[in-house]
Amino acid sequence: GADRHPTVPLKPLQVPAPEAEDRARSFYALMSRRRTVRDFDSRPVPEAVLEWAVRTAGTAPSGAHVQPWRFVVLTDPDRKRRLREAAEAEEREFYGRRASDEWLSALAPLGTDEHKPFLEIAPAVIVVFEVHKGPRTPRPYYTKESVGIAVGFLLATLHQAGLATLTHTPSPMRFLNEICERPPEERGAYVIPVGYPAPGARVPDLTRKSLEEVMIRL
Amino acid sequence: GADRHPTVPLKPLQVPAPEAEDRARSFYALMSRRRTVRDFDSRPVPEAVLEWAVRTAGTAPSGAHVQPWRFVVLTDPDRKRRLREAAEAEEREFYGRRASDEWLSALAPLGTDEHKPFLEIAPAVIVVFEVHKGPRTPRPYYTKESVGIAVGFLLATLHQAGLATLTHTPSPMRFLNEICERPPEERGAYVIPVGYPAPGARVPDLTRKSLEEVMIRL
Ligand SMILES: N[C@@H](Cc1ccc(O)c(I)c1)C(=O)O
Ligand SMILES: N[C@@H](Cc1ccc(O)c(I)c1)C(=O)O
Repeated sequence: GADRHPTVPLKPLQVPAPEAEDRARSFYALMSRRRTVRDFDSRPVPEAVLEWAVRTAGTAPSGAHVQPWRFVVLTDPDRKRRLREAAEAEEREFYGRRASDEWLSALAPLGTDEHKPFLEIAPAVIVVFEVHKGPRTPRPYYTKESVGIAVGFLLATLHQAGLATLTHTPSPMRFLNEICERPPEERGAYVIPVGYPAPGARVPDLTRKSLEEVMIRL
Repeated sequence: GADRHPTVPLKPLQVPAPEAEDRARSFYALMSRRRTVRDFDSRPVPEAVLEWAVRTAGTAPSGAHVQPWRFVVLTDPDRKRRLREAAEAEEREFYGRRASDEWLSALAPLGTDEHKPFLEIAPAVIVVFEVHKGPRTPRPYYTKESVGIAVGFLLATLHQAGLATLTHTPSPMRFLNEICERPPEERGAYVIPVGYPAPGARVPDLTRKSLEEVMIRL
């Protein structure tokens, strides 16, 4: 009951209605300029920005408040080279054998292939792990949902700070444990190169669904 | 090749380094004030804020850019009452039979039980569906990751606009298809009551992990 599990007063943000609308619209305007980037500059990124982004990710809600996430920030060139080599080995399998024709057609507009130079060129790569039950970690609930939301917060922070990201999902990703020195109860789920875009970087000419296509009012 | 799949120039945000750090820190300061709320006021929320939040969610990256999400915004009292009744029926099963002791202990600090009045009291409930392959929808990839990130963007927008949310995950959630009139290829994944917090609302006295507990540099 209330005795054993204390509560504290909520301190609400208190935003007047007209300002609420402005804030939501400005955040949309900012976020709608985000694009997934595959062509990075090697210029280093401010360490503090990476830290604030991870801290922000850590404010995400999670099932039973277990906070089942780990963020490994790779900046060491040797480590990034090993990551690239292991990822490219997986991707050669994927593009050469594992991917269905349906999947390859879906990917064609993105122009991706088995070469992943951005894993070495980007100055930082954030590898996000889902933390499952282990010797020192409790059982998480709704792990993918919790970590997905945290990654949303992470990407939103990095974008606002002018950094480009690629939400990359090599699979299977077991090689991430060795490269990032993580125990088996942690499972690599996202590999996110972070950096400034290369001068003249281009992106696929994709569009987003309209509000009418994604929202229904009842 | 490049001919069949056109590219466009990226238009980067261009944030000078000192400002990048400020922006990342301010966004953290804002987001760290977010708490999951279970005690809502019934006062309506600005329709436009809900729309900007869904639009922002729709800027999330997704596997093969499939955008496998649907947001159903329930404000009709009758619809919310049906949602509450169906959710409470599931939760009675959960708390009375399905949940393990381990799970119930993990939940105890949150003070939750099978009563879900907030599903009727909150002026809006956003039900988020993952859209799988169907007669009119392509096969998605990394669906849970994509929709999780989109929900992160949604929650970040609503919070900034001063609205409280609860990231609620009744399970199983098949009843959501009927209440929200969605076809079987859509799977309800999140039920998110949105509104102003009730005056004097309290929240569990939880803390968040420190940066050192979640981030590793290599
Ligand atoms: N779905 C139940 C139980 C519950 C509650 C909170 C939470 O973080 C988790 I994981 C589960 C309910 O909503 O009460
Ligand atoms: N993992 C491969 C293929 C790939 C790429 C993009 C994408 O959205 C999806 I789904 C898959 C690669 O990274 O090339």
